[in-house]
Amino acid sequence: MLDTTNADRVSAVLAAFGDALDQGDIDRAVGMFTEDCYWRDLVSFTWNIRTVEGPQEVAAMLRDRLAATGPKGWTLAEGEIPTEEDGITTAWIRFETGLARGYGLIRLKDDRIWTLLTTMVELKGHEEPKGIHRPLGAKHGAGKDRLSWKEEREAEEQALGRTVQPYVLIVGGGQGGIALGARLRMLGVPTIIVEKNDRPGDSWRKRYKSLCLHDPVWYDHLPYIKFPDTWPVFSPKDKIGDWLEMYTKVMELTYWTRSTCTSASYDETAKEWTVTVDRDGEEVVLRPRQLVLATGMSGKPNIPDFPGRDTFRGDQHHSSQHPGPDAYRGKSCVVIGSNNSAHDIAAALWEHDAKVTMVQRSSTHIVRSDTLMEIGLGGLYSEQAVQAGITTEKADLIFASIPYAILHEFQIPLYEQMHERDRGFYEALEKAGFWLDWGEDGSGLFMKYLRRGSGYYIDIGASQLIIDGEIALKRGQVTEIVEDGVMLEDGTHLKADLIVYATGYGSMNGWAADLIGQDVADKVGKCWGLGSDTPKDPGPWEGEQRNMWKPTRQEGLWFHGGNLHQSRHYSQFLALQLKARMEGLPVEPWGVPEVHHLG
Amino acid sequence: MLDTTNADRVSAVLAAFGDALDQGDIDRAVGMFTEDCYWRDLVSFTWNIRTVEGPQEVAAMLRDRLAATGPKGWTLAEGEIPTEEDGITTAWIRFETGLARGYGLIRLKDDRIWTLLTTMVELKGHEEPKGIHRPLGAKHGAGKDRLSWKEEREAEEQALGRTVQPYVLIVGGGQGGIALGARLRMLGVPTIIVEKNDRPGDSWRKRYKSLCLHDPVWYDHLPYIKFPDTWPVFSPKDKIGDWLEMYTKVMELTYWTRSTCTSASYDETAKEWTVTVDRDGEEVVLRPRQLVLATGMSGKPNIPDFPGRDTFRGDQHHSSQHPGPDAYRGKSCVVIGSNNSAHDIAAALWEHDAKVTMVQRSSTHIVRSDTLMEIGLGGLYSEQAVQAGITTEKADLIFASIPYAILHEFQIPLYEQMHERDRGFYEALEKAGFWLDWGEDGSGLFMKYLRRGSGYYIDIGASQLIIDGEIALKRGQVTEIVEDGVMLEDGTHLKADLIVYATGYGSMNGWAADLIGQDVADKVGKCWGLGSDTPKDPGPWEGEQRNMWKPTRQEGLWFHGGNLHQSRHYSQFLALQLKARMEGLPVEPWGVPEVHHLG
Repeated sequence: MLDTTNADRVSAVLAAFGDALDQGDIDRAVGMFTEDCYWRDLVSFTWNIRTVEGPQEVAAMLRDRLAATGPKGWTLAEGEIPTEEDGITTAWIRFETGLARGYGLIRLKDDRIWTLLTTMVELKGHEEPKGIHRPLGAKHGAGKDRLSWKEEREAEEQALGRTVQPYVLIVGGGQGGIALGARLRMLGVPTIIVEKNDRPGDSWRKRYKSLCLHDPVWYDHLPYIKFPDTWPVFSPKDKIGDWLEMYTKVMELTYWTRSTCTSASYDETAKEWTVTVDRDGEEVVLRPRQLVLATGMSGKPNIPDFPGRDTFRGDQHHSSQHPGPDAYRGKSCVVIGSNNSAHDIAAALWEHDAKVTMVQRSSTHIVRSDTLMEIGLGGLYSEQAVQAGITTEKADLIFASIPYAILHEFQIPLYEQMHERDRGFYEALEKAGFWLDWGEDGSGLFMKYLRRGSGYYIDIGASQLIIDGEIALKRGQVTEIVEDGVMLEDGTHLKADLIVYATGYGSMNGWAADLIGQDVADKVGKCWGLGSDTPKDPGPWEGEQRNMWKPTRQEGLWFHGGNLHQSRHYSQFLALQLKARMEGLPVEPWGVPEVHHLG
Repeated sequence: MLDTTNADRVSAVLAAFGDALDQGDIDRAVGMFTEDCYWRDLVSFTWNIRTVEGPQEVAAMLRDRLAATGPKGWTLAEGEIPTEEDGITTAWIRFETGLARGYGLIRLKDDRIWTLLTTMVELKGHEEPKGIHRPLGAKHGAGKDRLSWKEEREAEEQALGRTVQPYVLIVGGGQGGIALGARLRMLGVPTIIVEKNDRPGDSWRKRYKSLCLHDPVWYDHLPYIKFPDTWPVFSPKDKIGDWLEMYTKVMELTYWTRSTCTSASYDETAKEWTVTVDRDGEEVVLRPRQLVLATGMSGKPNIPDFPGRDTFRGDQHHSSQHPGPDAYRGKSCVVIGSNNSAHDIAAALWEHDAKVTMVQRSSTHIVRSDTLMEIGLGGLYSEQAVQAGITTEKADLIFASIPYAILHEFQIPLYEQMHERDRGFYEALEKAGFWLDWGEDGSGLFMKYLRRGSGYYIDIGASQLIIDGEIALKRGQVTEIVEDGVMLEDGTHLKADLIVYATGYGSMNGWAADLIGQDVADKVGKCWGLGSDTPKDPGPWEGEQRNMWKPTRQEGLWFHGGNLHQSRHYSQFLALQLKARMEGLPVEPWGVPEVHHLG
């Protein structure tokens, strides 16, 4: 009976909310929100990815967007039963706009709207051909000189980029470019993906050989084809590479390998890009309307300009270029940095009998993988979650429904639990001299990822090597590279045959600077981060990831990517934005923020 | 309340049945069956694929197998609600044996068992590593000189067939070999698949270019990885080829391309095969314990020995060798045969402006694809079925639960419906001179497929070309091939630049004759067919497909394959039989039939 009551209550709120919107009565609609409300919209109202916070911002958004959006049909999603816990009623909902069908999640406090997530599912008249609407494949009936599927595919591959211009050009064929390419293919948007490597998946294959994903399989599915039940929890890099390669093939993506974009410029009048591509040695000029940079969320490798680097006589490279440990048996290796890659690389070198020293220059957040999976991710992304009916798609929406402004409040208690559970481990690490942190406000790994994309290690074993002194640890700044090693500020001279700079990456708009020009990079500004006013994520508060998956200050320029979760989830909304533009629908992005930081 | 009653009633029957079996009281157990009962067992009781018919056969099977099987725990399957319709109560059930966990479907008439399907799901202690038991992938902790996933895979590929013998050798890498290979991989059975073509999927790619699967996507899923929702209903041949290729790769199968088995012999003492393989030019000798022929359900291409074939001056080939229509524009083409391939090839030639004559030598069963999908398959394999909760796995079991002996009774009314729906179409075909049939007893396509594997065309357009006279039709026997064409018994001289022999295939044990010897082929006898005493399926009644997926009269020799449905479904039971043998479990096949026909 309680369930019925919850359903009735939510239905009543939805009906009243829908009625107020129907009437254009913004005051009444806004009055239905709590004072501390959040409305996160993924493209359905704002043609943007945007969270409005508090009744005043809700009102401002509705004033600008209500009439054009034309929302209606607010109702509980079929087959879903609202729940109540700690005074919060939560329900999956459906709605429509003039142009699209939407899905969302609503949370009520005392029958007022506390959080609202509205997402666009599909554009009316432009639905994906799937399920009952999937293509026939075979061509029934008979017709003279029909082409086979293979002949059509070959003709399409031949024409695209030569006699037919792609509507979208995606630069970068990692999981971001591939997931977006698949969505665009399903929406019938002519797209080329340009990738510098030989094969899809090489961006994973080429990394250090011990690398496995740090995120578990339930978090990593691509759209349309899920990993099988037999897939490992943490994909080895070559295995995920093979999966991406097969996915690219069976999803019929136009994917140019051994290709690099060498320059791009936008014609504001013609509203199209001119992009020069070196396609395996041949120069091809493309004229897409939309240019998506999916070149890696972390931007370009960053190597600090330590004095004396050119005098070093051994091997030195950025972590992204590290080939693995095989050539360094018995050698002295210095790994500068103390985040994920630094730990993985140091441990693999140790496994191959290298003498490894890690140089920790700043504090690092460490969580043990098992603990993170169980306490941090298990509720949404785990076998238990799947068995409780939380599919990956649902988990994505639940995660998306928690406003960034208060996400840390949900995270802090989890990390307190993790700290408690692994107290002995952390004490041992500190005793070994390791400089720990838990994020600025104790909110841990996800917030660090969202705010700055760095500053942590998900421990799968290297921490024990540090605790045991198997990997030597040095804390402090590097003052100089000398011909036989690394000098630290305390005068320590670390002799080295190999130096690995696990020193992170620049901002993603650095790719735009290289490809298009510094002026455009500056115009769009820094990518990623929330404006949380914490280290490496300066304020003011943005409320969303800067520039990602949404309109930027440069028309026709988009940034896409992130981990597999983000590549999967946000590709949906980016694809819909691009499709709507191709179809000439009235797209009016609302609330595109000012640029506060250049990179 | 009705549901509760059904559940209670079935539970009571299961409890009583379980109790009788527990007590070893075979008479009491048999007394619970109806007089017209059928018990189909897939490996769980009989280590065989076997239907026992009537109480006496049930009793005979139980007398031999009850004690060794040790069944227990008969209960309704979780989450499934028994249904009642037309006096038949149907329920999904679970049970265990001493060695395995089982799943099944039971149908009651007046609370007595009318049909019982028992299938083996997994061997205790040898479960597939999936879901909660999936591998970790990453190697947590640290250890000296650990290999990466890629290094381990490469080492395994290097060793298997050289320093490590495969337990199973699968000859033929089409969907049959691939699906079985995947199951065996998941069960940890060292297996090599040998395939003559260059790439997995080539057995489809190399066929005539207009070919698409005649079965729809819901019927075609492979184990573990389903086609995405966006996959076409009828897969074009090159697209299914690409899928098979990627599947082979991501499922990590050891798959030797450009390889042919040239001879095989079995050592009855050592219980192992000696198989010589031409591996891309290199001779490799393998010593597997089990040899699986998955070389194509239809056996070797059959070309009737028409006199004068060597005098023909044009192109002539079997339908399996037909390259497609491109080279025959404007040419006179004679297609001998009137089944699926004959129609597809004739239509594609017509589309490329060839002059096509089809020679119909015997009557043919024709159903229109749309009609077949809707009336024949829709209940089990369709988007509607999926939405009604009938997954492909469930559909397979429902289909498997209907005893072959009475399957035709279920089929006849469906084909009467189809005939009625398309009456005008059939009239037009007959008017055009086409010689129609509906199977010996009017039971249509599936029964023809199961009985003889031939004799039908699923119409996707060629019939209209025949009705319209665009494809010329000649009825009668071929008497001779002459240098410029084909002579028929009525004296007709069909001039031809191309003759396509769409004249079917031999029995699958022909492969065994070629590879192992005629003695072994004769020892195992004919493959496929039910013994229905209808054309091309001589009696006596077998009750199951001859020799397929189950023990043969030659120890260590197995036949596997069929369409994608059969390759998927029966690979489960064949894989479990092979795994049990590898683990040395007490496997005692019961009821392996006598051989009545040589091929």
